[in-house]
Amino acid sequence: MQESLKDSASLWADFSRPIATAADYIESLRGRNMNVFFMGQRVYEPVDHPVIRPSINAMAETYRLASESPELGGVRTAIGDCRTNRFLHVPTGPEDLVAKHEMQRELGRRTGTCFQRCVGLDAIGACHSVTFDIDAARGSDYHRRFLEFLHRAQRANIVIGGAMTDPKGDRSKPPHQQADLDLFLRVVRRDQRGLYVSGAKMHQTGAVNSHWLIFMPTMRMTEADKDWAVVGAVRVDAPGLTYVVGRQTNDTRGVDGGELDAGNAQFAGQEALIAFDNVFVPYEHVFMDGEWSYAASLVERFTTYHRSSYVCKTGLGDVLIGAAAEAASHNGVAGASHIKDKLVEMTHLNETIYSSCMAGAYRSKPMASGAYLNDEMLSNVAKHNVTRFPFEIARLAQDIAGGLVVTMPSERDLQNNEIGPLIRKFLQGRDGIDTVDRMRILRLIENMTIGRNAVGYLTESLHGAGSPQAQRVQIARAMRIEDKKARARKLAGVQEPRTGL
Amino acid sequence: MQESLKDSASLWADFSRPIATAADYIESLRGRNMNVFFMGQRVYEPVDHPVIRPSINAMAETYRLASESPELGGVRTAIGDCRTNRFLHVPTGPEDLVAKHEMQRELGRRTGTCFQRCVGLDAIGACHSVTFDIDAARGSDYHRRFLEFLHRAQRANIVIGGAMTDPKGDRSKPPHQQADLDLFLRVVRRDQRGLYVSGAKMHQTGAVNSHWLIFMPTMRMTEADKDWAVVGAVRVDAPGLTYVVGRQTNDTRGVDGGELDAGNAQFAGQEALIAFDNVFVPYEHVFMDGEWSYAASLVERFTTYHRSSYVCKTGLGDVLIGAAAEAASHNGVAGASHIKDKLVEMTHLNETIYSSCMAGAYRSKPMASGAYLNDEMLSNVAKHNVTRFPFEIARLAQDIAGGLVVTMPSERDLQNNEIGPLIRKFLQGRDGIDTVDRMRILRLIENMTIGRNAVGYLTESLHGAGSPQAQRVQIARAMRIEDKKARARKLAGVQEPRTGL
Amino acid sequence: MQESLKDSASLWADFSRPIATAADYIESLRGRNMNVFFMGQRVYEPVDHPVIRPSINAMAETYRLASESPELGGVRTAIGDCRTNRFLHVPTGPEDLVAKHEMQRELGRRTGTCFQRCVGLDAIGACHSVTFDIDAARGSDYHRRFLEFLHRAQRANIVIGGAMTDPKGDRSKPPHQQADLDLFLRVVRRDQRGLYVSGAKMHQTGAVNSHWLIFMPTMRMTEADKDWAVVGAVRVDAPGLTYVVGRQTNDTRGVDGGELDAGNAQFAGQEALIAFDNVFVPYEHVFMDGEWSYAASLVERFTTYHRSSYVCKTGLGDVLIGAAAEAASHNGVAGASHIKDKLVEMTHLNETIYSSCMAGAYRSKPMASGAYLNDEMLSNVAKHNVTRFPFEIARLAQDIAGGLVVTMPSERDLQNNEIGPLIRKFLQGRDGIDTVDRMRILRLIENMTIGRNAVGYLTESLHGAGSPQAQRVQIARAMRIEDKKARARKLAGVQEPRTGL
Amino acid sequence: MQESLKDSASLWADFSRPIATAADYIESLRGRNMNVFFMGQRVYEPVDHPVIRPSINAMAETYRLASESPELGGVRTAIGDCRTNRFLHVPTGPEDLVAKHEMQRELGRRTGTCFQRCVGLDAIGACHSVTFDIDAARGSDYHRRFLEFLHRAQRANIVIGGAMTDPKGDRSKPPHQQADLDLFLRVVRRDQRGLYVSGAKMHQTGAVNSHWLIFMPTMRMTEADKDWAVVGAVRVDAPGLTYVVGRQTNDTRGVDGGELDAGNAQFAGQEALIAFDNVFVPYEHVFMDGEWSYAASLVERFTTYHRSSYVCKTGLGDVLIGAAAEAASHNGVAGASHIKDKLVEMTHLNETIYSSCMAGAYRSKPMASGAYLNDEMLSNVAKHNVTRFPFEIARLAQDIAGGLVVTMPSERDLQNNEIGPLIRKFLQGRDGIDTVDRMRILRLIENMTIGRNAVGYLTESLHGAGSPQAQRVQIARAMRIEDKKARARKLAGVQEPRTGL
Repeated sequence: MQESLKDSASLWADFSRPIATAADYIESLRGRNMNVFFMGQRVYEPVDHPVIRPSINAMAETYRLASESPELGGVRTAIGDCRTNRFLHVPTGPEDLVAKHEMQRELGRRTGTCFQRCVGLDAIGACHSVTFDIDAARGSDYHRRFLEFLHRAQRANIVIGGAMTDPKGDRSKPPHQQADLDLFLRVVRRDQRGLYVSGAKMHQTGAVNSHWLIFMPTMRMTEADKDWAVVGAVRVDAPGLTYVVGRQTNDTRGVDGGELDAGNAQFAGQEALIAFDNVFVPYEHVFMDGEWSYAASLVERFTTYHRSSYVCKTGLGDVLIGAAAEAASHNGVAGASHIKDKLVEMTHLNETIYSSCMAGAYRSKPMASGAYLNDEMLSNVAKHNVTRFPFEIARLAQDIAGGLVVTMPSERDLQNNEIGPLIRKFLQGRDGIDTVDRMRILRLIENMTIGRNAVGYLTESLHGAGSPQAQRVQIARAMRIEDKKARARKLAGVQEPRTGL
Repeated sequence: MQESLKDSASLWADFSRPIATAADYIESLRGRNMNVFFMGQRVYEPVDHPVIRPSINAMAETYRLASESPELGGVRTAIGDCRTNRFLHVPTGPEDLVAKHEMQRELGRRTGTCFQRCVGLDAIGACHSVTFDIDAARGSDYHRRFLEFLHRAQRANIVIGGAMTDPKGDRSKPPHQQADLDLFLRVVRRDQRGLYVSGAKMHQTGAVNSHWLIFMPTMRMTEADKDWAVVGAVRVDAPGLTYVVGRQTNDTRGVDGGELDAGNAQFAGQEALIAFDNVFVPYEHVFMDGEWSYAASLVERFTTYHRSSYVCKTGLGDVLIGAAAEAASHNGVAGASHIKDKLVEMTHLNETIYSSCMAGAYRSKPMASGAYLNDEMLSNVAKHNVTRFPFEIARLAQDIAGGLVVTMPSERDLQNNEIGPLIRKFLQGRDGIDTVDRMRILRLIENMTIGRNAVGYLTESLHGAGSPQAQRVQIARAMRIEDKKARARKLAGVQEPRTGL
Repeated sequence: MQESLKDSASLWADFSRPIATAADYIESLRGRNMNVFFMGQRVYEPVDHPVIRPSINAMAETYRLASESPELGGVRTAIGDCRTNRFLHVPTGPEDLVAKHEMQRELGRRTGTCFQRCVGLDAIGACHSVTFDIDAARGSDYHRRFLEFLHRAQRANIVIGGAMTDPKGDRSKPPHQQADLDLFLRVVRRDQRGLYVSGAKMHQTGAVNSHWLIFMPTMRMTEADKDWAVVGAVRVDAPGLTYVVGRQTNDTRGVDGGELDAGNAQFAGQEALIAFDNVFVPYEHVFMDGEWSYAASLVERFTTYHRSSYVCKTGLGDVLIGAAAEAASHNGVAGASHIKDKLVEMTHLNETIYSSCMAGAYRSKPMASGAYLNDEMLSNVAKHNVTRFPFEIARLAQDIAGGLVVTMPSERDLQNNEIGPLIRKFLQGRDGIDTVDRMRILRLIENMTIGRNAVGYLTESLHGAGSPQAQRVQIARAMRIEDKKARARKLAGVQEPRTGL
Repeated sequence: MQESLKDSASLWADFSRPIATAADYIESLRGRNMNVFFMGQRVYEPVDHPVIRPSINAMAETYRLASESPELGGVRTAIGDCRTNRFLHVPTGPEDLVAKHEMQRELGRRTGTCFQRCVGLDAIGACHSVTFDIDAARGSDYHRRFLEFLHRAQRANIVIGGAMTDPKGDRSKPPHQQADLDLFLRVVRRDQRGLYVSGAKMHQTGAVNSHWLIFMPTMRMTEADKDWAVVGAVRVDAPGLTYVVGRQTNDTRGVDGGELDAGNAQFAGQEALIAFDNVFVPYEHVFMDGEWSYAASLVERFTTYHRSSYVCKTGLGDVLIGAAAEAASHNGVAGASHIKDKLVEMTHLNETIYSSCMAGAYRSKPMASGAYLNDEMLSNVAKHNVTRFPFEIARLAQDIAGGLVVTMPSERDLQNNEIGPLIRKFLQGRDGIDTVDRMRILRLIENMTIGRNAVGYLTESLHGAGSPQAQRVQIARAMRIEDKKARARKLAGVQEPRTGL
């Protein structure tokens, strides 16, 4: 059998032993023959690549948490009939979504960055109910296939990545009108065993660190876009896949400047462009194929899950608030009223985000499949706050930390015999504070506000799970304006009934 | 028996028949011999006073809701062993607090103003657990007394007002150091049957529209303030009580300009100063007497309940958003992108408030007495958002509505034969809109942003349940900064353990 | 000669003696036979009307300032060949605009409200250059007429009001397509001696307190709107004019509650609807008649002047900041760091408005007529800040002042023998502060944030001189985006030249 | 003569020929024997160092501008009796400060970064008037020395750097109480020929790219700090000086990723730590020596100049607004209303900063020496806006640009034969846009919002010329609160006079 045409069973053969620990996970990534590039060079072993490794470490924390706090990081699942990582669990009640968000915040606190496993989780949730709905309406077989896929994934305890964002080209045109038809991922061929897809997915979080990918359409489609309305699962090492890992601010700091300059040497995020060239997907792994009218539902449910997943940023906020407080303490100004006031403001904004995410989880509702989905309005409101408040929290952190955040010498300067002592002398803070500790905290603040993890804390907070305008469109749709107008008319004494308004 | 020294049973004699409907409630207020003043004059029958009546109507809606939506407005209570109004119910689980907040938002939508019954409800909640705690520590009898009191109140289905805010005088001094010892309410005498209190409570919401009042200390106390650490219940018509109803912006509009000029002719809030002059309280109605160290708990629990009660403002927000949308429609600009964008922004802010309040309810925790209390951090965060967002929502409503909101002629001008037709002609909007309807909506927007109900929607949102700085103090206390600092140190690579930081 | 057809000279006969003082001015308003209505009643003598009088007082301050500070409030003018009030002066250099803005801020400080004389001043400025431009292009005679008119006005030292805002009806339609052609002011007839106009102007500032009015088109016009493209001057008592004074929040406080309740008993603003019914304008007082293509210039120049005139709000800001500081002092919390910080924030916002207004004055440029016009971009930026910052300043003032601002008893309660002493006792602040003084300051804060003068400080700040969106349109037009894009391309290394972008 | 003890004349010997062009300037930096370090390594020729060179290019633009626009970039100076670069000119009227600010904005537009020459310029301005004041009071000779120094500098047309910020150590202690006395720069020895200073200056802008440095005290001093109250000028290559160039976000991008990845390959800022070890200063170059009471004036005047110098950020804002507009055009969404609205908001904020800076220049006032100083209040207000608005402008730029800003592949990927074509294919925008041009614009936005020049645009905007709190302290000092309170009392009807408030 040709490698590229493996059937479903063969494709799962490598995953017979469940991944139990963070170390297992990292080991599981080794020796895969993936086509990965970074800065113009083929990366033969991402696990050992100094720029990529911190992103693997962050993902590995999702396993470590499950080991250390099984209730928070893991869950018993009916689908897999086993305990599995919570990132593979379809929520079956509000308490599942609440626990999910608590886990996400905790992982944000542990890593200070994007741990990359939420896209796949939220793809699972959305596919669960949408495949159910399609089958109910069309008599198709997608839901069973999906459950089987998920059963295997849960038992193997693997990482599933989600791939949604197409290149889009000219944004004023639908897929079938693009000059280049590949600008949205599409089915280019079908045979008896499966289908073949080509195109690309942009800035896919944690793609290289995953085991399997679920690809999905990125927006509402029309009948003419039928070939683009496709959902399926592929192994990350499937023939025809190419990964280009994107550059991040300061991504080479860990290489060129040492561990201190990196700010957070251990953890980082990862985004990659994934090109698909005639990638084979056996039908057993196809969960939508041409049912274009369900693309909108899939996108909306996915984004409703995913917008609330940005609760993770409150974990990053916790770290940044702590770093700012520590920096103030180093400077001997922890007691100044304006410092304390800024820390309160940061906390207030951070907890406001948290509360909108959690409210949306508590107020989740069941889909026909039994999966619970966050409240749509509140999830959009939550994400919309995420597009604003982390920027202000970051500004306040820099305000408290002082200008040294961006003018500090390198760790290599510290190691230099001539200038190292000068730096230790002149960068000292209040008595009893080790200069190097002070530098570490300032570098962490740089890392999160204008360095590598600002990519995740700031820009990704804007655009991940949909840009601000996408939330505004959803809020407009969910705002029930006619009811509000009727309330106003009643109090104003305007006579009803009125028609045609 | 002297009128002023009635015992507990006699005091309840008038409340033998439960109040069932809004009409019953209004009737129950008639014929009481209360000492009420407004604008320098004794008000012998508040029910018939044109400025006070709208506030009674707003309170009456709490009864109407219970009639129309028994599940939302009412509840079965174990304490009273009966169904009663939800405003008399001690929450025994998160679902009770969630239902409470839904009820508050709905009443905000129905009235567009403050319906005045939350202070008493939140006083009940706080007293339930604090009396339990005192008894547990001191062997006192407060909790039983309180339950008995509440049993009666629930069966009679009455309105209980809460009275907390003392005049305070020089805010840098505690009660016992004030030049005038009455600047905080205190026990001035005790005898075998009960105690006597003097002093005052400021801006008490809905005081005149209540049947009973629970008075409580307003802040943390020390042993020297023992006589000021007193909690009790009195009938609103108890001898020694005097009420001065405060002026509100445009409170006389309903009198001088007609129903249209009032904007919301039917509903308004009410705040009054209550002076206490040797008011007798039989011991059966005393729930704290000198246990000064519990004053802080009482205040904190009350404010934690009450800050979340400001979810009602999202109901007012619904009305104001609706009014702005209606005004835009009248002007023929409902489709303009900047108008739609402003409505989305208003909704986003309104739902952000809602989500913080609801999250705090879902995350409530039980006190020793079994009463559930909102999450402290989230409740403070919620109220802090209330001190900001309604102001921006109001600004945007005025932006959409246009300058006419503050330059419109009076309803009396409409009625004038000479100029009435001119006004109808020149104030018309797009075709098919009745000019008077347009004026009504604009007056409602005036009412809520710079008129009578702006008192509740804006200023009360700032100061009710504690001013912004009070929330910041609580947020600072609950922010767990040491844990956050430890997280930052860990990610920055700072060696632990460190002591003495 | 029929009263309604007086020629130019006769129309000026009443203004032979210049108005020299504030008292002169008030006297000059008496005995005019104007058709003024308020709350459904004809007002025969506005000067003596208790609700209207404060607005006359505010206008009178423009005369008082000229008496007390001749350099600030007055100026020598070449057109009139005399000294005159600065509100009648066409700016002939940046220093004139700078002095104008200083005068406006000072009058804001003196009155705490809208002194109503800027619309006329800015109408004069715009007419000066636009009439010059029309004449230059068309050989017409408007500029001479205008100079003659202004010469007389300056020598008589009268108040000129500006009337711009038409009712507009359906805002999606131009004047000639409105269902009712009067929804924009228009020429309904012409004869040898002059023309006749009908229609209305909405919310005209200080209309009743003026001597003459200049009416102008409200927006860009097309050829089909020719009859609506008309500018002229009429006496406020011209036959055919009817005034309906608009209601303002708390406008009757001064009547029903006494001087204290009013907050600022002496000063207030005024807006009125002016209906025009066949009002005759001799050609000598017509400054545009059908030159529709100049309507846009006139509006743009007027708004460019007028948007900067909102510097007056910084004078109101000064008062409100001072009131908040005084209230904090009364409460004994003037030294609290959060109070000081809020006062700084209020000042920062206030001075930001000031700086944008002033920068636009310093960067003014001469029109062909010699009149100087504020920088367009900066003037729009200034006004746009005015649509935001006063709302935040007001919110902070209420924050500092406390809830008593909206719950205070009336002055009449103070006068009552029974409750007056209770109020004095319980509303006292820190030692040595007179309770009534404390109440006065709180009422002033109410007045400016949710009372009568909030109309001018808040809502008028939004909509006067054009609503926020109007400024955004102008900013978009003036932002020179192509130059900015070219700068970006150059730094990014994008090759030029590129065409067709 | 020992190298380290050169007298004034010898020290100037190298600068006999004025620097005329940008090329001259760069040449003038070569071959100097400075002790410069970067990332742990001695940099023997900064001009050729790939990370440092962009900062030299930015400084060189100050010369290029003077060549290309002599009126803007240059000026005739009386002190030097010659034409010189405007960065060496003491302002003698408001028009000089206005021209200075126009030059700064233009250089911001040209470089998109910090061009580093303002600190020296503002040091010159402050020294001019403060040396004059000291001499007037003490009969000292500082002003003559300073003029002679400046005369030479202007004729040689060199770059003068300013060095102000001391390490400060424990910020709660003054210089003489620090554990290490070197934590503020101080005189350690005096002899007949001059004095010797030791200590350090932190994050000195453009230090390595200067020819001379003026060092100044960083804050108000007391008599015990006399030895720290010292001002003087030294050549940058004076014996005893060591420079450690600070790391900036993405500073190695130009090296490791190619010109495209850098975003703005040509220009960058520079900050260095300067250690002083017994650096000799001949008395002829000493401008303050122990006059501790003048340290405060010097700091205040310097910061008043320097806070307005942040007008340069509006030039960067122009570039970023242009880049965002270009990116929107590439995506085919330039016409979307929310995009246009965001560009307007960015412009509004940018011009608000501009207006506060310019207003402060126009309202400058003369010092006793004849030098003009920006208005203090407005200069602080301007800088305070700079600490806020660029962060929001940057957020909006990222919002418009999309997530690709932080996930884009490297230029090296483009050059790879296998993946280069994939990137060109999948990163294309609307028809006719070159993919690489699109990438360049996105990298520029990355550069200014989360990359190398975000250091200058964001963090330096917070902390340069004093952190936010420093401005608040100055605003509080300049706000004339007593006058404001008196205005409020007058309008509220509170009786004056009152004393002891």
